[in-house]
Amino acid sequence: MSTVVIPASRTYEVQIADRLPADTGERVRTAVPGAARAAILADDTVWSLYGQELEDRLAGAGLTVFRHVFPHGEASKNASVYIGILEWLSRCRIDRQDVLLALGGGVTGDLGGFAAATYLRGIDYIQVPTTLLAMVDSSVGGKTAIDLSAGKNLAGAFWQPSLVLCGCAALDTLPRETLADGCAEVVKYGVLCDPELFLHLEERGLDFDRAWVVEHCVRDKQGFVSRDEFDRGARKLLNLGHTLGHALEQRSGFTLSHGRGVSVGMAAVTRAAAARGWCPAELPGRLERLLEKLELPVRSHWPTEELEEFMLADKKWSGSRVDVVVPEELGRCGIRPMDRRELMDFMEAGCRG
Amino acid sequence: MSTVVIPASRTYEVQIADRLPADTGERVRTAVPGAARAAILADDTVWSLYGQELEDRLAGAGLTVFRHVFPHGEASKNASVYIGILEWLSRCRIDRQDVLLALGGGVTGDLGGFAAATYLRGIDYIQVPTTLLAMVDSSVGGKTAIDLSAGKNLAGAFWQPSLVLCGCAALDTLPRETLADGCAEVVKYGVLCDPELFLHLEERGLDFDRAWVVEHCVRDKQGFVSRDEFDRGARKLLNLGHTLGHALEQRSGFTLSHGRGVSVGMAAVTRAAAARGWCPAELPGRLERLLEKLELPVRSHWPTEELEEFMLADKKWSGSRVDVVVPEELGRCGIRPMDRRELMDFMEAGCRG
Repeated sequence: MSTVVIPASRTYEVQIADRLPADTGERVRTAVPGAARAAILADDTVWSLYGQELEDRLAGAGLTVFRHVFPHGEASKNASVYIGILEWLSRCRIDRQDVLLALGGGVTGDLGGFAAATYLRGIDYIQVPTTLLAMVDSSVGGKTAIDLSAGKNLAGAFWQPSLVLCGCAALDTLPRETLADGCAEVVKYGVLCDPELFLHLEERGLDFDRAWVVEHCVRDKQGFVSRDEFDRGARKLLNLGHTLGHALEQRSGFTLSHGRGVSVGMAAVTRAAAARGWCPAELPGRLERLLEKLELPVRSHWPTEELEEFMLADKKWSGSRVDVVVPEELGRCGIRPMDRRELMDFMEAGCRG
Repeated sequence: MSTVVIPASRTYEVQIADRLPADTGERVRTAVPGAARAAILADDTVWSLYGQELEDRLAGAGLTVFRHVFPHGEASKNASVYIGILEWLSRCRIDRQDVLLALGGGVTGDLGGFAAATYLRGIDYIQVPTTLLAMVDSSVGGKTAIDLSAGKNLAGAFWQPSLVLCGCAALDTLPRETLADGCAEVVKYGVLCDPELFLHLEERGLDFDRAWVVEHCVRDKQGFVSRDEFDRGARKLLNLGHTLGHALEQRSGFTLSHGRGVSVGMAAVTRAAAARGWCPAELPGRLERLLEKLELPVRSHWPTEELEEFMLADKKWSGSRVDVVVPEELGRCGIRPMDRRELMDFMEAGCRG
C-alpha cells in the first residue's frame, strides 16, 4: 500500500493497494468520522463485480449502507441521472455527516462527485476508482461534472473527495480496450511532465507495472492540483489533447471513448506543434508509436470542420480565445491562447499532418 | 445610495438605492471586468416589470444580452427549471468570463445562483433582488438551492455573487401580501440580533422606511456570513423559525408562502421557549402582536404530526439530532440540538401553546 497526500482546499489521501483492503470500512470511518450512513453509487457492470464486497465491508464497520445502480456508459453522465442521484440521497435521508462512495470509472466519479458537491450544499464523498482512467486522473483533484446537450462536462463543481481508494487488481478485470483507454491519460502525464513514465510504457506497453504507474500519475497530478486547484493556470495543462478529444467524442455520438479521443487529440496537437517548430520534429512519430503500441488511435475520421462546433463549446474559451496545450518537448508543454481561426488552422494542420 | 461590503470567500458589495441606477451597466462591468455577454434570468412577472429596463442598461454598456424567462412561483425552484437554465447558458455560449444576472425574488436568486455555481464549474453572477425577502435575506450570503421531491433547498451550493444591486422602489410595486411576506425575515433579524429594527417595525408596521430597513438587515446578515460563510456555526441562527416554516410550506403544497411559514415557525418556537423558561414570558405575545400588525399568521393549521416527515427531511439534521434555533431574549437566540422526540415535543408545545 502506498499513499499520496493531495493538499487542496481539503487535504486527503490517495491510497494505492493491490486489492481493496480488508479494513476498508474502518478507512472510510477514519476519513469521515461522523458518518452513520454510506451511500454507494455504481453502474450495473461495476456493481455486479465489486458492489457486494464494498457493501459488506462498510456494513461490517457499522455503517448503514444504501446503493444506487445506474446503466453503465458515458450516456449516463447526464442531468437526469444526476437529479435521480440527488432524489435517491434525499429519500435515504443521507445527512451532512454521512458519506457517498463513487465506485467505478470516470462517469461514476464525475456524477457522484457532482451529486456530493451539491446535495445539501455539499457532503463528503470517497472515490473508489475501478478503471485506469479513474485511478490516474478523474478520481483525483476534485473536478466533478455532467454533460449537457451542448457539450461534455459543461455543468459541475470543484469538490474534493475525503479519500481515494485504488485497488489496482481491478485493472486486470477490465476489457483490454478499457485498459488501453486509460493509458491515453498516462501517456498524457508522460508528455506533460514525466519522461520516466513515458519510457516505462514504451518498454512495457499494456503490460506496465500497475501500482507503479498509478502512483506516478497520482503524484504528477498532485503537482498540478496543489499549484492550481481551480484550473486558472498550471492545471489547464492537463487538458493536453482534450479540446480535439472532447470534440471527437461528441462527433462520434460517444461511440469513440474518452481515452481514444484524447489519444487522437494529443497526436494531432503534437504533429501541428512539430510542423510549426514548437517541438522537436521527432516527437510526433515517437508519440504515435507509443500510442499505437498501446492499441490507441492517432488519426481522426472526421474532417476538422465537422468538429468545429464542438470545439467552440469547449469550457476553456474566454471571450474570443481558447487556451490550447501544446507540447514543447517530451516532459514539457505550454499554453497558447488561440482565436477561432488560429485554432481551426492549428487543428487542421494536426489532423492533416 | 448606501453600500455594505460582504467579506466572504469572494468580497462583494451590496448597493442599496431607490431605483436601479442609470449606470447599472457600468457597475456590472466594474464588478465583472472580463464579461462580454450578460445572461438575465427572471420570472415572467418580474420580466414584464423590469426586464427591458435592465436589458437596455446592460446593452448600453456594450454587453451582449441574453434572457431566459420562466414561470413565476416557488414551484419553479425545481430540477427541471434548473437544468433548463444550464442548457440555455450553454446554447448562448456563455463562458467563464461572462456574467449571469438573477433579476427577481428568492426563487430567481436561488435558481440563478445555483446555475452560476455549477455552469462550467462556476461563473460570476449578480443579484438584482426585487422583493423584500430577496433584498434582506436570500440575495446576500451565497446560499443557492433548488427543491427536491423530499424537501426544500435540498440541492445547492455556496457561491457568492459578485455584486448585489437593490432598487428599493421595486418594493412599492409588490402586492401587499408579498411585502408582508418579506417582513417575516426582517422580524427574524430583529429577534436574532437587532432590537432597534424590531422597534422600527413595531412603530411603523408595513409603512417602514424601505432603504433603512434593507440596509439594517443586510448589515445584520453580513455579521453572520462573515463569521461563518459555510453555515457550520453562527450562521445557523438565521434558520430561526425555518424548520417548522419549511415543513408548513411543504405540507400546504406551497400555497403557504415562505415568509408566512417562517412567521408561524418563529411564533411557535418562541411560545415553546417561553413555556420552558428559556426566554422571557412576555416575548411570545410581543412577537405575535408585531407579526399580526404586519398581516402575518402566527398559528399553524396542521397538527404537528402531519409536519413531522417534512421536519425530518430538514438539511440541518446531523445523525440523530437537529439544531433548533431558540429565542433567549429580544435580540439574542441560541442553538439547541434536539433528537426526534425532543423536537416533536418542542414543536407540539409551540403549536399548542
